[in-house]
This record gives sequence, C-alpha cells and structure tokens, in this order.
Amino acid sequence: MERVFNFSAGPSQLPLEVLEQAQQDLLCYPGAGCSVMEMSHRSGSFEEIIHNTEATLRRLMDIPEDYAVLFMQGGASLQFSAVAMNLAKQGQTTNYAITGQFAGKALEEGKRWTNAKAITSSKADTFSYIPKITPALIDPDAAYLHITGNNTIFGTCYNTLPDTGDVPLVADWSSAILGKQIDVKRHGIIYAGVQKNMGPAGMAVVIIRKDLLKREVDPIVPAMMRYKLMADNGSMYNTPPCFTIYMTGLVGQWVEKQGGIAAMEQRNAEKAGILYDTIEQSQLFHNPVAKEDRSIMNETFTLPTEEETKAFLKMAEGRGMINLKGHRSVGGCRASIYNGMPKEGIEALAQCMKDFENGLRK
Amino acid sequence: MERVFNFSAGPSQLPLEVLEQAQQDLLCYPGAGCSVMEMSHRSGSFEEIIHNTEATLRRLMDIPEDYAVLFMQGGASLQFSAVAMNLAKQGQTTNYAITGQFAGKALEEGKRWTNAKAITSSKADTFSYIPKITPALIDPDAAYLHITGNNTIFGTCYNTLPDTGDVPLVADWSSAILGKQIDVKRHGIIYAGVQKNMGPAGMAVVIIRKDLLKREVDPIVPAMMRYKLMADNGSMYNTPPCFTIYMTGLVGQWVEKQGGIAAMEQRNAEKAGILYDTIEQSQLFHNPVAKEDRSIMNETFTLPTEEETKAFLKMAEGRGMINLKGHRSVGGCRASIYNGMPKEGIEALAQCMKDFENGLRK
Repeated sequence: MERVFNFSAGPSQLPLEVLEQAQQDLLCYPGAGCSVMEMSHRSGSFEEIIHNTEATLRRLMDIPEDYAVLFMQGGASLQFSAVAMNLAKQGQTTNYAITGQFAGKALEEGKRWTNAKAITSSKADTFSYIPKITPALIDPDAAYLHITGNNTIFGTCYNTLPDTGDVPLVADWSSAILGKQIDVKRHGIIYAGVQKNMGPAGMAVVIIRKDLLKREVDPIVPAMMRYKLMADNGSMYNTPPCFTIYMTGLVGQWVEKQGGIAAMEQRNAEKAGILYDTIEQSQLFHNPVAKEDRSIMNETFTLPTEEETKAFLKMAEGRGMINLKGHRSVGGCRASIYNGMPKEGIEALAQCMKDFENGLRK
Repeated sequence: MERVFNFSAGPSQLPLEVLEQAQQDLLCYPGAGCSVMEMSHRSGSFEEIIHNTEATLRRLMDIPEDYAVLFMQGGASLQFSAVAMNLAKQGQTTNYAITGQFAGKALEEGKRWTNAKAITSSKADTFSYIPKITPALIDPDAAYLHITGNNTIFGTCYNTLPDTGDVPLVADWSSAILGKQIDVKRHGIIYAGVQKNMGPAGMAVVIIRKDLLKREVDPIVPAMMRYKLMADNGSMYNTPPCFTIYMTGLVGQWVEKQGGIAAMEQRNAEKAGILYDTIEQSQLFHNPVAKEDRSIMNETFTLPTEEETKAFLKMAEGRGMINLKGHRSVGGCRASIYNGMPKEGIEALAQCMKDFENGLRK
C-alpha cells in the first residue's frame, strides 16, 4: 500500500523526510550504538537530543529567556488540570473562554480545583465564531484566563489575542503550534499536545513564564504535575518520553529547513485558502465559520445531506485521502491540514470537491 | 557504528527483531497508508493495534477477566499518585514497604494524599535485602499495601509475594514485568512503566482488579488520573501514546514467540546465573544482595576502589558494553539484563569481568 493524504486531526500526517530520518536511525542512532528508544535518558546522546529539541523550539518560536520549556506526559488533557493546580489556590477564581469541546473540557478540569467561570461562550452558535474578550469580562483577581487558541473540531482560531491585562493568559495551542506565528510574550503559559503538528502522540510541550513557577502549589498536587519540579529537573524528574522528544526535535528541524514558522504560516494560509475558495465558489459545500475567525489548520465543511457526505468521503478515500470525516460529536467533514500536509494533498482534495459537485462520483 | 550490548536500567535494550519490524513499517503500516505515528487513534487500524496489545498482555500474563488493563501516560511516577488518589480517601491510612529509592518515592507521593506509613524498610542495610512482611505489620484498615516488586537500583526482588489478607496488594513491577512470572491474582493493582522490559519510554501499564474501580474518588482528582474513566474509555479518554502502545504490542508478540513468560524467566535466570556465578567465583567483584532476594533483571556489583570501577567500565565500553555504571545515587556497577539482552551479551560481560580480574585491561 502507498502512503495516502491523511487529513486526520491528530495524530496526523508527519513530513515524509522526518519519518525517513527516523527510519534510517531506528536501529542505531549515530554514535550511540542503540536506538533512541533504547537510550538511557541520562546518556550523553539523549542529553544532546533533549537539549537540541528545546533549543530548536526556542529559535523557531522566539521564546524569551524568562520562559521555561517543559516536556510533559499526559497530553493537553493533563495540562487542563496542571494549569489549575499550579497557578491557582484551591477555590480561587479562574476564567475560561468557551470556544469548543476542548475548551469545555479544560473548564471541567479547572472546576475540580478552582472556582472556574466561563466568562464567554459561542456554544449557542455551535462554536462558529470566536467571541470577543473585553477587559470588562475578566475577573481582575482571576488566577488566569484560559483560551483554546485553535479549535480543532470547529475550525476556528484566535487570529488576534485578547488583552488580559495583569491576568496571565493561558492558551492551549495544540492544533496550531509551529503552524502559525504565536507571540509567546503575550502568554503566561502556552501548552500543546504534540500529536497534531509536532510529533507522535504522548507528550505536551509547556512554555511557561518563569515568574509563574514561583506560585505556591498545594502539597496535595502530584509531583508529576508540578511545573517547578519539571523545570528544576529539565523535564527529567522521571524517565521522559524520549522517542517523542526526539521526533519533536526532528519536526522542529524540518520546520527550520522550510524557512521557519513565518514561512510555514504563509504556506498553510495558502493551502487553507485553496480550500476556503473552493467552498466559497461551491453551491454544495458549506463552511459555517465567521471569516475573521477561520483556522488555517482545520477546515470544517458540510454537504446538504448525510447521504452526500458519505458519498463524498467514500470518493475521497478512493482517491487516497483519508480521515476527512468530521469529529464524531459534530459530523460533516473536516480537513486538518497541518505542516505535514503538502500542497498536493490540498489540490487533490479541492479537485475532488469540484468533481463531486460536478457529478463525478469516483 | 555497530549496535552495542546496552545494559541500561531503562530505557533499555529492545529485541532487535522488534526494532526491525518497527523500522520496516515506519513509513507505512500495512493497510493503513500511513505510519503508526500518524494514525488517528479512532481509526480501525489503531483500534486493532491497541486491542491486540491488550490481548497479548492478557495471554502472556494470564490476566483474569475481572482485571482491567489500562495504558496511561506519566510512567510509574504518575502511578505513585494515581494509586493513592484512586484507592484511598484523603487522609486514609495506607501502607508501604520500603525497599529502595522508587519505593521511597511512591511513599512520598502517597503522603500527599493519604496517611502513608512505611511499615518496614531495609534502608539501614542499604536495601540489600527484602524485609519480610508479616500480617502483624499491616494495618487492617489500610486502603492498600504498596511494594516495589523488583528494585532496579539495588538488584533485589520479591521472589515470594507477601500475604496481605483483605488489604489489596499494589505492586510496581516496572523492572520485571514480562521478564518473570507474576501471579496477577495475588494483586489488587500491578503497574509498570514500559521503558524497561516492554517498550520505549512514555507509558505505564496498569492492571487493576475491577472491584477497585468502584471505590469513590474525590472530585478534586484530575480526569487523566482516574482509573475508572480510563477503563470506561478503553484507555482512550484522550489521545493515547499510540506508537508506544504499538511497540509494547510488538514486544509482547516477540515474548510469545520466545515461548512466553515462563520461557523468558528461565532464560533470564540462566543469564543472571552466569553473572552471579562469575561474581561468586571472583575475589574482585562483590554483590551485596541476600541470595534469596536476588533479582534476575538487575545485578549490582562493586569493585574495591573507585579507580578500579572506572577502569572496568572503560574496558567494558571498549568491548561494546555500555551503561554498566551503577545508579548515580549508589555508584558501583549494575547490569540490567532484561528480555532484550541476549545471552551473548551476558557471556561477553562475564568474560570481561574475568579478564579484568586476571589483569587484562582492554
């Protein structure tokens, strides 16, 4: 079987060059005498790998010196809890903007530990836009304001960041990190599951302003969730997910070779534009998202009937394009077009949409 | 560079056939059109992988139907906390047997949530033996008794399990799982970081008796740490560490091909015996562990001086044997000889020890 165009929302298509590099070194990493999967995390070879991965992310995202970069297990979902338990005292007020399912899950986890308030939500409009966050909405004593930067399921994105004043902005950027420019300095914490745009599943990258590491953390909070402990131990308080850190480094180096994040963003915007244009010119396909809030990483679109949706997905699969089905909670279609998706994949999809609309069914 | 004999305590040497299989399918898993690292965790291909991994572990370890098998992130270290938060109410008494550094860490995490008591310890004798646990030592109202089954750093092992009566036995078997027979039915919970004997770092396998899933869990406890939620969602409450689950399955299948765990244990005992015999016959090398508590997975040994230790490690490295240095907290030497270490590696090490003792220094 040949490799297909994989529009999965995550885990998702990785750059072929990255996979080829990993394949080449899988039995024996240069100079190490063993696979990255077999390396002691205390070995010189792995120390170099984790150092390079962090340094690459720092260069790519222009992460200032007063921010720590952590590699933690448990994906974004464990960060939903860790953010609350590290930044807020038990019962303290925290603020959440609700722009989709994962924002809602972050809120639910926040509620376990804090007085977590949803200060705004676009739920009534099926999350088809990003509600404006004005300073008046924010509790001045909130431990933080949490947003979901890019909403994978609904195809929306904070294309401009809210002004949160002295309240730290905490953002889940899982589905856009490394795919578009994100101004780190505007954030207290950025976290991201790596399985969408940075590597294989099994890790979150946490970028945290160092003054936030000084907040008092309740003794109840597990060691593995403590940001300061992770920072003090260079993300190696216990054995880290070594191979995932290595893969994330390879992806980062690949992004650098493509010209960095600015170049990736331009390319991703161009890719997204091809699909959005196709949808706009179509009488059959529809995208519900407010234009200014469109994501360049995930595009949702619907067809008039369930039957047509199925027929379209089948035709696309026949042409070697998989995982175009929308999230099981919303239905319809969705194309996730992260860094690893080449323009050829987008062109093939756009052609498939046009052909389908013109009555061709294979 | 050629592959070496890697005596790392974890991450550790994997069977070459497993790595070769992973390498072969790295760009395109059969029938999937993409790498396992790129697969949607909701895809049929991945559903099959996770199902097969669990089924393989169930066959190998003879796991009864009334036990759930979970794949969780955060390694054994997050389980130190999860065990306490799932099995005990806040402040409830829990019991710990202290047989090494990781047992101590488990106790520390237990103390965050429970009234955790060390009921016995071999610390005064540098953890050179496994203290007997008599029923009189156990608090009858303890939520559980926690042991560290195999002590990686000190080379000791519970070669017979304690009788804990009605108090559930919780055991960290990270460094012996799949390497020796473990009677699952005697345990309430078995957990194990996979990076020693089952796959690459980044996951723990949790085997839990299903009645323990019914214990009431405080609302404070994060979703990602809740055993019942993980069990109800087939370990896919969020995106699981897909590639690690796949690799663990490959390792399990490899163990089956070797004849299963009984055959592995026999082979590991034979491998360990070669080294223990070498040490016993030596005037130079010394192993401090009580004979009945010896581990067949990790063997520690010392030389009379720091200088000789360094010279020996250098000589071994020159012969293609790496990571023989003891844990940074104890010094000396340690050979971790999990399933992935072939007998040839053991013979090469034994020869190296004999040659060193006979004055050969390269």
